[in-house]
Amino acid sequence: MTAPDVINIGQKLGTFSDHWNPRIIGNYNGNEIRVAKVEGDFDWHSHRETDELFLVISGELGIEFRDGTRRFGPGELVVVPRGTEHKPFAQKECQILMMDREGEPNTGANPSDLTRVKLDTI
Amino acid sequence: MTAPDVINIGQKLGTFSDHWNPRIIGNYNGNEIRVAKVEGDFDWHSHRETDELFLVISGELGIEFRDGTRRFGPGELVVVPRGTEHKPFAQKECQILMMDREGEPNTGANPSDLTRVKLDTI
Repeated sequence: MTAPDVINIGQKLGTFSDHWNPRIIGNYNGNEIRVAKVEGDFDWHSHRETDELFLVISGELGIEFRDGTRRFGPGELVVVPRGTEHKPFAQKECQILMMDREGEPNTGANPSDLTRVKLDTI
Repeated sequence: MTAPDVINIGQKLGTFSDHWNPRIIGNYNGNEIRVAKVEGDFDWHSHRETDELFLVISGELGIEFRDGTRRFGPGELVVVPRGTEHKPFAQKECQILMMDREGEPNTGANPSDLTRVKLDTI
């Protein structure tokens, strides 16, 4: 068994500049570790069969839920339980690490113009 | 569905001081999100049925593998595939975030004096 690589989150984030288009940087127990740059509003959606983890690397991320809004920054994380409607947003560019089960579209059960199904691995 | 809490990793790490004794700070898809302070040498072990994710929050973490050593710092992560023998170490205190499947002992299939089976949730 070969020693696994060290994955540098900041280095991975430095390789692209578009928003709301996650890249895969690793895999863990059938889940994808993803990074993304986000700015502005995402669409309301939910994931039927996967929780979704958001960890902020830089900037501030907001997530609207039907009963409230969460805002969080570097070193803070939120796990959105499966089936929970949510709408991420960021007033300024924000860099995040995410986890979703393998193959999950970014808009879950709610396709939109922002849907990304086949993500690049970087 | 209630909006989930924001989890502040640094705040959680500030609530304890002992080494090699992970605490659970959240759950994601049947896995536990854990934080730990580590210093010195852990024991050689492997996890038969779970990958193990290590993300460094502060300090430098080393992991020995049978064919090499990895050293990594803040903003860097390593996923140890299931079944891979490894031995974490840190020359100075290091703060980490980890993920393991729910209920997995920290020493996996290799019980030792450092084994923690029932972890506290903080």
